[in-house]
Amino acid sequence: MKNYADKLIQAIETTGNSCIVGLDPRIESMPEFITRKKENAKVEDRIIEAISYFHKLVINAVSEQVPGVKLQVAFYEQYGLAGMKAFENTLNYAKEKNLITIVDAKRNDIGSTAEAYANAFLGRTNIFGEKLPIYDVDCITVSPFLGQETLQPFVDACVEYGKGLFILVKTSNPGSWDLQDLKVESTGEEVYQGLAKMVAKLGETTIGKKGYSSIGAVVGATYPDQAYLLRKIMKNNIFLVPGYGAQGATGKDIVNCFNSDKLGAVVNASRSITYNYGPKTISESDFVARVEKNTSEMIEDVNSALESN
Amino acid sequence: MKNYADKLIQAIETTGNSCIVGLDPRIESMPEFITRKKENAKVEDRIIEAISYFHKLVINAVSEQVPGVKLQVAFYEQYGLAGMKAFENTLNYAKEKNLITIVDAKRNDIGSTAEAYANAFLGRTNIFGEKLPIYDVDCITVSPFLGQETLQPFVDACVEYGKGLFILVKTSNPGSWDLQDLKVESTGEEVYQGLAKMVAKLGETTIGKKGYSSIGAVVGATYPDQAYLLRKIMKNNIFLVPGYGAQGATGKDIVNCFNSDKLGAVVNASRSITYNYGPKTISESDFVARVEKNTSEMIEDVNSALESN
Repeated sequence: MKNYADKLIQAIETTGNSCIVGLDPRIESMPEFITRKKENAKVEDRIIEAISYFHKLVINAVSEQVPGVKLQVAFYEQYGLAGMKAFENTLNYAKEKNLITIVDAKRNDIGSTAEAYANAFLGRTNIFGEKLPIYDVDCITVSPFLGQETLQPFVDACVEYGKGLFILVKTSNPGSWDLQDLKVESTGEEVYQGLAKMVAKLGETTIGKKGYSSIGAVVGATYPDQAYLLRKIMKNNIFLVPGYGAQGATGKDIVNCFNSDKLGAVVNASRSITYNYGPKTISESDFVARVEKNTSEMIEDVNSALESN
Repeated sequence: MKNYADKLIQAIETTGNSCIVGLDPRIESMPEFITRKKENAKVEDRIIEAISYFHKLVINAVSEQVPGVKLQVAFYEQYGLAGMKAFENTLNYAKEKNLITIVDAKRNDIGSTAEAYANAFLGRTNIFGEKLPIYDVDCITVSPFLGQETLQPFVDACVEYGKGLFILVKTSNPGSWDLQDLKVESTGEEVYQGLAKMVAKLGETTIGKKGYSSIGAVVGATYPDQAYLLRKIMKNNIFLVPGYGAQGATGKDIVNCFNSDKLGAVVNASRSITYNYGPKTISESDFVARVEKNTSEMIEDVNSALESN
């Protein structure tokens, strides 16, 4: 039986690092050699071409270096149907290159609606009597706001199809305090601690051969003290750690997200890898070299922080 | 300047009711005259045809009766790109028929990612230097889990483009208790009460001529006691009330969501309107008549509950 956690940890061991590259299309930040493609074509075709080609180059640059990529679906959705076509193209290319595919969707809803989201990303949809895969990614992020029962359809899909989840527990933004850090009267603990216990429990049935569960948590790199506490509550759960790079966290800040086996987390960087390349007049080959270099630097920073810990 | 709340209340006053019809595609529940269309075409084309045509009939049946429709994006997303094309077709047809369009997306994310979602549904996206509308709907549902700052890009889009929001406060599912009903130590109040105060505050700057704000709340019909309390906290905010019909709530249960002016809420029903038609062998004209009748019965139930209150 396939287990997502085993697959992810295998990829981490093969590449020798836990870094994930974020593929977030912002056309206005792309180099000119991308945005000038098909300048006379229909706008939908230009969108599809720009986003798909940009990410093909990024994937080519990083596919031997890192275990996986994370696609932030909001940035594709903002370009409408053309954006979603580019999302599909980018996903397919990442799969072709054997990268772990994580979709940052922060989806959820109630009852059969949660099931529809699980079908879309992880499972299969009943289409005219046949159960067919749709986006069929390795893992998505989901929100726990609607309660534990609404996470169950996603957990079920993980078990049935060998997929994974990262449940939002403590996000990297300043305002995550508003709700996630509220102290609960009955337990004397913050909301995020209660969520962490729920994630640990939900993950118990999907622990793979490597000792990690397919049900993980999102824990922001920007809150190392909370990460330290959460690491103790969720011993067997993998953390998806945003906030590295453009959001200000460094290798040193993310060590608390890892276990003593130097596993248990994947660290994502998006803008600092793909849009940190200097002037927009950069050439295609220089762009690819720069993405490769940005990725190597991140890997070195994260690995040396882990080693000196 | 356009104000979404004014537009919605105008539509409620014109049609004489606050009922919203949910357009949630579940192909396996559609009549045979729909699912047998283009049986030899490509599966993507069959999906687009089935969902778009089904909803065209529903919209034709209800567009003179109700102020608006609510599209649950999860049910479209589960059919991939074809589903999203049908989403666009259905939206465009609803707009053509002058219905208020509410998209139940429960989206949110942090920083510029929240902005991307706001661009997709309410605002405009910068595409090759031009700011263009994408889905351009009247209103969407959003999640407050990531904190107040993450709602701001959506509020800004509402102000700039005359759009609306329904922020999740107390959802209709049994498990909504898990997080939303936790009692907060510092205030002695449940999480949903704190959220309600935040919604009331966020809504202050978008109150229209009719006295209601464009920033509303999702409050489940299945929790009438909580609705009573929330109505007092959010005096000027419109409630989107799910849970009527298939989820068990009746007209009597929803009266607490309204103000004494018999305004302040819209009640959604999906399955009990569009999939409550008997055997799948039903004819097209009988299906349309049944949807019309289901809608009339809901309107009568909700209106008579409001009148006898």
